[in-house]
Parts: sequence; C-alpha cells; structure tokens
Amino acid sequence: MQLGMIGLGRMGGNIVRRLMQHGHTGVVYDRNPQAVQALAADGAAGVDGLAAMVAKLDKPRAIWVMLPAGAITEGTIRALADLMDKGDVIIDGGNTFWKDDVRRSRELAAKGIDYVDVGTSGGVWGLERGYCMMIGGKKETVDRLDPIFKALAPGLGDVPRTPGREGRDPRAEEGYIHAGPVGAGHFVKMVHNGIEYGLMQAYAEGFDILKSANLEERPEDERFTFDMADISEVWRRGSVITSWLLDLTASALAEDAGLEDYSGYVEDSGEGRWTIQAAIEQAVPAEVLSAALYTRFRSRHEHTYAEKILSAMRKGFGGHVEPKKAEQ
Amino acid sequence: MQLGMIGLGRMGGNIVRRLMQHGHTGVVYDRNPQAVQALAADGAAGVDGLAAMVAKLDKPRAIWVMLPAGAITEGTIRALADLMDKGDVIIDGGNTFWKDDVRRSRELAAKGIDYVDVGTSGGVWGLERGYCMMIGGKKETVDRLDPIFKALAPGLGDVPRTPGREGRDPRAEEGYIHAGPVGAGHFVKMVHNGIEYGLMQAYAEGFDILKSANLEERPEDERFTFDMADISEVWRRGSVITSWLLDLTASALAEDAGLEDYSGYVEDSGEGRWTIQAAIEQAVPAEVLSAALYTRFRSRHEHTYAEKILSAMRKGFGGHVEPKKAEQ
Amino acid sequence: MQLGMIGLGRMGGNIVRRLMQHGHTGVVYDRNPQAVQALAADGAAGVDGLAAMVAKLDKPRAIWVMLPAGAITEGTIRALADLMDKGDVIIDGGNTFWKDDVRRSRELAAKGIDYVDVGTSGGVWGLERGYCMMIGGKKETVDRLDPIFKALAPGLGDVPRTPGREGRDPRAEEGYIHAGPVGAGHFVKMVHNGIEYGLMQAYAEGFDILKSANLEERPEDERFTFDMADISEVWRRGSVITSWLLDLTASALAEDAGLEDYSGYVEDSGEGRWTIQAAIEQAVPAEVLSAALYTRFRSRHEHTYAEKILSAMRKGFGGHVEPKKAEQ
Amino acid sequence: MQLGMIGLGRMGGNIVRRLMQHGHTGVVYDRNPQAVQALAADGAAGVDGLAAMVAKLDKPRAIWVMLPAGAITEGTIRALADLMDKGDVIIDGGNTFWKDDVRRSRELAAKGIDYVDVGTSGGVWGLERGYCMMIGGKKETVDRLDPIFKALAPGLGDVPRTPGREGRDPRAEEGYIHAGPVGAGHFVKMVHNGIEYGLMQAYAEGFDILKSANLEERPEDERFTFDMADISEVWRRGSVITSWLLDLTASALAEDAGLEDYSGYVEDSGEGRWTIQAAIEQAVPAEVLSAALYTRFRSRHEHTYAEKILSAMRKGFGGHVEPKKAEQ
Repeated sequence: MQLGMIGLGRMGGNIVRRLMQHGHTGVVYDRNPQAVQALAADGAAGVDGLAAMVAKLDKPRAIWVMLPAGAITEGTIRALADLMDKGDVIIDGGNTFWKDDVRRSRELAAKGIDYVDVGTSGGVWGLERGYCMMIGGKKETVDRLDPIFKALAPGLGDVPRTPGREGRDPRAEEGYIHAGPVGAGHFVKMVHNGIEYGLMQAYAEGFDILKSANLEERPEDERFTFDMADISEVWRRGSVITSWLLDLTASALAEDAGLEDYSGYVEDSGEGRWTIQAAIEQAVPAEVLSAALYTRFRSRHEHTYAEKILSAMRKGFGGHVEPKKAEQ
Repeated sequence: MQLGMIGLGRMGGNIVRRLMQHGHTGVVYDRNPQAVQALAADGAAGVDGLAAMVAKLDKPRAIWVMLPAGAITEGTIRALADLMDKGDVIIDGGNTFWKDDVRRSRELAAKGIDYVDVGTSGGVWGLERGYCMMIGGKKETVDRLDPIFKALAPGLGDVPRTPGREGRDPRAEEGYIHAGPVGAGHFVKMVHNGIEYGLMQAYAEGFDILKSANLEERPEDERFTFDMADISEVWRRGSVITSWLLDLTASALAEDAGLEDYSGYVEDSGEGRWTIQAAIEQAVPAEVLSAALYTRFRSRHEHTYAEKILSAMRKGFGGHVEPKKAEQ
Repeated sequence: MQLGMIGLGRMGGNIVRRLMQHGHTGVVYDRNPQAVQALAADGAAGVDGLAAMVAKLDKPRAIWVMLPAGAITEGTIRALADLMDKGDVIIDGGNTFWKDDVRRSRELAAKGIDYVDVGTSGGVWGLERGYCMMIGGKKETVDRLDPIFKALAPGLGDVPRTPGREGRDPRAEEGYIHAGPVGAGHFVKMVHNGIEYGLMQAYAEGFDILKSANLEERPEDERFTFDMADISEVWRRGSVITSWLLDLTASALAEDAGLEDYSGYVEDSGEGRWTIQAAIEQAVPAEVLSAALYTRFRSRHEHTYAEKILSAMRKGFGGHVEPKKAEQ
Repeated sequence: MQLGMIGLGRMGGNIVRRLMQHGHTGVVYDRNPQAVQALAADGAAGVDGLAAMVAKLDKPRAIWVMLPAGAITEGTIRALADLMDKGDVIIDGGNTFWKDDVRRSRELAAKGIDYVDVGTSGGVWGLERGYCMMIGGKKETVDRLDPIFKALAPGLGDVPRTPGREGRDPRAEEGYIHAGPVGAGHFVKMVHNGIEYGLMQAYAEGFDILKSANLEERPEDERFTFDMADISEVWRRGSVITSWLLDLTASALAEDAGLEDYSGYVEDSGEGRWTIQAAIEQAVPAEVLSAALYTRFRSRHEHTYAEKILSAMRKGFGGHVEPKKAEQ
C-alpha cells in the first residue's frame, strides 16, 4: 500500500522504513531536504512539498502527518486539505490534543476528507520493536488502512498470550486497536502517557528512598548503602514490579548508578497535562497522575514563590528565620 | 500559685512573665545564667540548677519543662524524677511526641510522680495574645493546675462566642482544654500543627498560581500581573478564607511582595511528620497534610535523585536529553 | 448611584438590599416575579424584563448580572448587549470562568459596551458582613462604579490594620480591589476558592485523624476519645490556625459533634477545577489544591473503577480476594 | 543442602517444593498437620514441632521462618533461639518490618545465632517463575546459604540481559541480591512493595479516566465508550507502559471488563505503610506512594468524617445542603 509521510523526524522516518520493510511504498516530505534524501536512499520516493506529494499519490490518497502537535500540525493539515480530494484521508500520528482531532474532523468532513488520529507509542525503539497504536476514526477508513497499521504494529512476538481473549478483536494482540471514533486514538494515547508519568514517578520515589537510607540520625546498624544497579536488576526477575520502564532504569543504573550526568530537570509534554484535565472534567480522582506531573513542574525551579510564602508565614508566627542555603 | 520553669527560651520566659502578670510566682532555671538573670529582673526567683529548684518549691511541687523535645527534655525529666517526691507533678510543655508522654508517664507513675503534657500554640505572640493550650493528664492533676492554665490562656477576648456551646466545658472558650489522659494534649497539638502545614500550603499554592499568571504563552489580554500585597489584604475582610495565617501573609507581603529575602528553603518539625505517622497508623487518608510536608522536604534540595531517575528513563525510551539548567 | 440587578437569588437580592441601605437605588429583575416583589417591598424598583430595565435606567447604564455561570449568564449578557448603548457597562458578579470574561469583553467592545467582572466572596453572610470583591476591568469604568463597590465592601471594620500598608491602595483594606483588566477579578476569585478547598481539606483531615485516634490495635493508654467540639473551640483562641472556616466548624460541631446529619457527599464547583487547570497551564505544582478537589470527587462514589482495578491486580499476583463489604 | 521450613502456607510450601526440585532437602513444620502431610507426600521430612525440627537438622542448622509478620513470627523465632546453637542461622522470609530484623539480630547475636532476612516477591507464581529475593545478613552467612537462594531464584530465564552489567554481582541477574547487613533485605522488599502500590494506582487511575470518558455533559462526538480489555491488551505490545502488572490487568479485563465481581474494597499491608514511614524519616517526598496508600484507606469506607466536616463548613458559609445520596 502507498502512504505519504510528512515529517521525517525520529518517529516519521522510522515508520516509513518499517513500512517499506513490509513491502509498502512511501512518498516522503520534510522541510529539511537532507531528511528526505536519507529516506530516498532507503527506498522512499522523496518530494519537495505538499503539492508534489498530493500529485504523486494515487487516489484515494492517505497522508500521515508526523509533526510537533499544535500550530505546525494544524497549519500543515489545513494546507493539505486545500490540495486533497473527497475520499482522501489525513492521518495525524503526532501527539495532538484529542479535542483538536474532533474539531478538525468536523471541518474536514465538510470537504469530504477523512481524518484518522493515531496515538503511537514506541519512541526510538519502534523500528525494532514495532509501534503500539491506538487509532480513532470511522470504521471503513480504519479498515482500509489496516495493511499499514498491521505492518507497523509489533505483532504477537514472544509476549505470552492473555488467557480468555478468544472471540475478542485480534488486532489488540498484535499491538493496535481501533479505539473508537475520531479523537479516541489520541484520548487513549493521552491516558497511556498519563499512566507512564505515574509509573515513572513510583519507581523514582522508591529509588530515592533507597538512596537516602544511609540516614545519619539513625543508629549505625539501621543505615544502609544500597547498590542501585543491582536492586533495579534483581527486580527484573520474578518480582511483581517488572516492566519495560524498569528494564530501562536498570540499563541507566548499570551505566552510572549515581546518575551524575542528569541535572534533575525534567520536561513534561501535553499528554500528561491533558490527562489531568480529562480527569477533572470527568470528576475522576487522579492523585498519582497529578503528583507525577507536579514533580516535573517543581523539578524545573530552584525555589518556588509558594515556598517563600511558607517561610514568610513561619517568620510571622514563630520568628523562624530559614537558612539561606539548600542542603545539597 | 507557684510554678517552676526549666528552659527560658522564647516560650518558657514569656510563659513565666505572663504568669507573674497574673499574680503567680515563678522559680526559674536555664543553663544560660543570663536568661535566669533576665527573668529574675522581671520578678522571678532564679535558681542555678534542678536540685536548687526542687529545694525552693513548696510541696506538692509543679515544674514545667520547656525545652527542645527529644534527648534534652528526656534527660531533664529523668534527672527531675530522681529529685522530686510522690505527689509532685512534671509538666512537659514542649513539642514532645505523644507516645513518649505515655511511656514517661508509666515510668513516673512507679515513683508516684504525676505527669502532664501541654501542647502550646502561640509562638512569639503568646505573651500578648495568650497561649492556646491542649492538656493531657489525670483529671485531679489538671484541675489542681487550673490557675496556671487559666492565667496563660487567651481568655474570651473579643472573639465572638460560638453559638450552641451552652453546657459545654467553659475552658475551651477561654483557650485551653483538658483533652484527655496523658499524651492527649500533645496528640491534639500534633494534629493542630499538621493542619497548620496544610493551611499554609493551600495559601502558598494559591499565591504561586497568582504570581505566575503572567504566562508568556497566553494572548496578551489573558495575562495578569497581580499585586500580591493587595490581594492578601482584600481577602482579610469578608472573604471565606480569612485567618490569622492570612493576616501574617498580608503583613509579609506589605513589606516585600516579592519575598526576596527568603530563599525558599523551608524547615519542618516533628509534629508535621508525626501527624502523617498517626494518619497511617489509623488508616486515615491525609493527602493534603502529606503533600504539605513533602513540599517542605523538596524545598531543601536543589534536585532529587528521583528526578534524575525520571530523566534517565526519558532518555531510555525516547532519547530525550534534558537541559542542564533550571528555569529560574 | 443607580444600579440594575438581574438575578435576585441569595446573593443578588442581598447585594441590592445592602446598596439601598447605603443610599443607592436599585432597579431589579428576576424571572421569578415573587423575588422581584420581595425586593420592591424593600424599596427597589421592580421591572418585568431586560428591556424594561434598560428603559428604566439613566445613561450611562450599569447592570449587574448575578446568575448561575455558564449558559444562563451568557444568554442574558448577549440579550442585554442588544438593548444597551455605547458607554453602558455590564457587570458579571457570578462565578464565571475568567477566560469567558476576556472573550465577552472583546465581543462587547465592538459595540462600545464596557464589561466588568466581579468575584464576590461572602456567601449568605454578605448582607451583614459585607462582600469581599475582586474586580477586573478598565480603570475608568471601575473608578466610575466605585460608590457601588465601596457600599458593598465590608470596610475596615474591627479587623486590625496590616502594618506597612501606608501608601498602598486603600481599597484593599476596605475589602475590594481592582485586580487588573477584564478577567482579573474572576481569576483572583477562582484562586480564592481553590485556596478555600485546600484550607477546608486541611481541617477535615485533621479532624478525621482526631476522630479515629481511639484505635483498637493500640494499647489502652494510647487510645483517645476526643471532644471535637471543644477542640475546634479551643483552637479559635490564640492558636496559629484560627480562621473563619474554623469558626464555622466550631459552630457545626457544637451543634452535633458526630455530624450525623451529613452524608459525606460533597459537591464541587467550577472555581476549584479551574484553579487546577490554571496551575497546570502555568506549570505550578498544586498538590494540596488538587488533592482537596479529588477528595470531593471521591466522596460522591461508593466505589470507583480504579479501586476494582487494584483488587483485580491483587487477585492476579497474590491470589488475594478482597472482602465484599466496607468497614463502616 | 538441608533447610528447615516453619510455616507451610502459600509461600512456604512452594519454596520447599522448589528447593526439592533442585535437589535440596526439606524438613518441614506447620501447626496444621495436614499441611505437613502434604509436603511429606511431596518428599519433605515432616516434623511435629520446633524441638523435633531442631533435632532433625544437621549443624550448623538453617531454619527458614515463613509466617505472618508480627507476634507469630516473633514468638516462633524466640522459641527457636532457645533450642538452637551457636553457629545456626534463622532466616525470616516473611514480611517483617526491617527495624524488627535489626533488633532481633542484636538479640540473637548474644547467643551466637545468625539471622538473615529475606524479602521475597513472587506470590502465587513463585513455584513456576522462581522467587525474586532481597537478602540482608552477614556476608559469610549469606554466602553459606547461596545454594538455597540460587535454587529459589528465577535465574536468567528469557529476560534480556541488561547491557553494561559486566563486572557486577552476577546474582542480581539471577534474581537475588545480598542487599546489605541484617534488615537490608526487608528494607528493599518494603520499597519494592511501596513502588508496587504506586504502579498499581497509576494504572487504576488511567483506566478510571478511560471508563468515565463517556461524559454526558460533552457534545456527542466528544464522548467515548472504550473497550477496556482491548486497551489493556494493546499496551502489552510495544508500548512504554508494558509490565507484569499490566499483563495481570489484561487477564482480569479479558474475563470481565466491568470487574463486577470486585467490591472496590482494597486491603493494604505493612510494607506500603512502612515505605511512607521511611520516606518521612528520611525526608524524601513520596507523593505518589502516599497517594496510592491513601486510596486504599479511603476505599474501605462509605464516607469519612473528613467529608462530613467539609459539608458542615459548606453549609456554614454558603448555606449549601449536600444531597444525601451518592452518585452511583
């Protein structure tokens, strides 16, 4: 099957490569000509703009947009919509906010252009492991694109089958689902990332407690200096908390258990925030997912105004004057 | 009534002063002779040690220990117990852990010495405003000491009476209660401080949200630069969130709305931690009180190991490399 | 000064009454004619619709809308805009989302109609205590309406002056502020309510810990049965955690310390949610304010799907089968 | 090698079975004679009491105690200590609080008896998957017992090797570590369980947000009814959040996506609580791990006193009367 791909970054490029490995054809564009050339060298047909891409593709066309969410994706899709025809489909595989999908789909429907949103997990490992995909869109459109999704998905692999799934949609076991109408794909991916934040923070807090267990105030035989690399490794086998995130942690700690190369500054992205927004809209308590997000916010400051307010109150009622310097 | 006071710091000294203002007699000791002299100049009888204090007091003696909780208080009470007689009472007015009260009381009971624990709120303002006291101990002992507590308590003052309290213990309205048996006083004071942490953090977060409302990403007419001093002031009149802590905040912000003199490093003390410990022992969800405590822990670090673990995972699954420097 | 008031519920009606007590004139409308008659009996001029109100008011008109936030307020303001003239002003005193203020103000500006948003705290107590007001709008408009705000505000009263406020805006001390451009009033009120949630939850958790201190597993002398009414009362005098919310709690507990009349089901309103939304937009950690909101969400369910997921996992890894019935 | 096992419940019995499968010899005791007979039928030597066990074992003896933590384990170890000799070793494989290990080890050292604490993860799956073990004790003792631990551990299996572990302790890769001196084993296991709570809660909140995405207030095309079983399944392949806990969840949801058989009542055990206690002692922010614990506390109540306090305040300031019934 033929697919146009716009945006040849870490994700987009490898998606095309994996598709071509499975016998599909890629027509590719990126505003960076070198990215286009690199893919062309791997067998894709490179083009130099949106119009060229639309011209190059057979009808009904399918174009996958893999760009930073927000204005860039929005602008590209609008430009595409002006060039494409009734019956064509635009696939947004980026990290778009699900309500934007719903709005866009309404707008494109007026022109007869279909829209499919694909939440894609897999990061830099996708080329090798396959991409886990959560897809939103009309049934017939998603079905028509099935060869693409099937090729990108990890497949059954050596992951043990879940008992009791007989009679259920076989695509889930292969690593992709048709989650629902437009927006459903990015909604599920959003929650996926919200959960990811929570899982990461659970491990992070645990390792922090281990790290600080050599507490000076304690009697000598109640103080421990743990080997973080070995602990993360041992939990990978037979424990209740084995996971891929733990595998990654064990790798990082094997390299440098002190993690001295990391500043502790942690970014967050849209999905983590939107998950909390959805929780609040839906009145779902989401303590853990929120706390995980707030930790990242806090990590990017030396001190907060909130903390100064606390100190000011403490001085007010108790005459306490806080020390000027942090512990570490 | 006659009271011995050991420990003439910010709290102990003023407690004696307030008692003398109400016609009571103070016998005072501190390891710092200048503190003793200062109180003597105000009319107290200074002594140079525990034995001298015991000798100076009429039986049954009442000695108030106002020292840092932990080893210092413990050692002093043990030394006193060796010097005092059956029927005497030791009052611990410091920030002792309530289970230590219970244990100590058991030990002292063997010698016939009574023990009373007094949780005292009021800080540097107590001399002027009076001390809010939560008292644990045997009924007859607490009743015998009532003149002391009555003198120290704020009294009805100009605080409006709570409707419907007819027939209830009148001491509560005057600012002191007999909370229960030994330990009960410090238990209630512990929870008081736990609540204090929560209240402080609620204001702190609110002011932080106001402070950051001039968000660059927002359209110009959705950005606000608020006057923190005026906001804290306006909430003092007629709003639902008026409180003494807000009064103190308004004072601090009137002086310097930027709070530039504060580093943001915030200490915590035993009670905040013990409150969470009690919550966990009693299986009570205490999200807000815990979060308030954790914020203080976090404020004392530049970065945590937990945050570096997050960054290490992010690099692992997404190839993300966090920037090295914090925002501020 | 003359003010039109639309919406004569608990707040709107008393606002007009307080204005009339201060010599102002009220023209009032409510879709419930009895509410209009009641105000007319107190001296206001009742009208039977928006057009009648506009006709009745002198130019430049000022109409205060005090209706439930959302569609009702929106529709009323749109209808008013069609009837009013350049130079008139619409005041939204309800609980409107601040971004709606900004949008509306843009729309009304096209017609030359001014818009002012007033966040109002004071609840059922406002007639007596006065209303704490946080106002957003253009300087000249807010200044023109000053007689209205001054009359509604609590005034200095017997609240002690904050030291160091010399030279600052005197309105804050009287209980109202011009917080900034349109939207700023509701933004500050929103954060006010967010803080309110946090404060309430801090007290609530503290009382819950006290309530459950009679823990069966503990040795007998470590178990306490506290008098909640007396504890809430004693904290009202001289303690660090005195506040109006505590006063209200003491009243409720004096009436019934077991609070048997309350189900434990707790509503939340827009402001609490929008505060978290603002925190997330602005990347401010807001643990306490979020936790306070989530507690309310949780209070409205018997059990959550989340909890069932936990049980399902526990059965999966440990064969644990949870009991079917809750403790209480 | 020969090992005595006291306590033949779900864990103890299978540990002996796995040891015998690897050529070791088990001498077993349980207060339930049928449990002893069942193990004897599988090849173990059954005894009818502690004295008989001690008599049956060759010196230096090794006895593994696998009983509920607390009084039962404590009493058994004390009784054993009276029967055993210098050079023998007692292994506590249960869920003991690490500070109890340290204290016990001090006591047993006086008699020359060694003590080893083993935190064991693996639950009902251990016989098949092997047990992940975190071990505390003296080096020579742990080394002497190595054949036991090696047999119980999962081994390398088909879990991919972590790159960069060359030169590190090979035991970690096989699923067991010597974590440090006495207490270290249970400390690491405690944190393991604390993390487990956090991970579980992260998934639980995520699924709850998905479950409630069919929000009535939303426009029709923004409402989703998700297939929980398929979502949990798709995340098992290629996504960032794959884990064993997710595998278990997918199994449970494949069976019944509504989880109707679960009440939502969730137990907690000591380790989750002790983890928070350690965090607080060590001043480590542990928001996520705490929140996960609190959720379980909350799940066991219909309503809390805290929530009634909130309602009482709401009535006080706003005249709000909460509805009497919960949503569901």
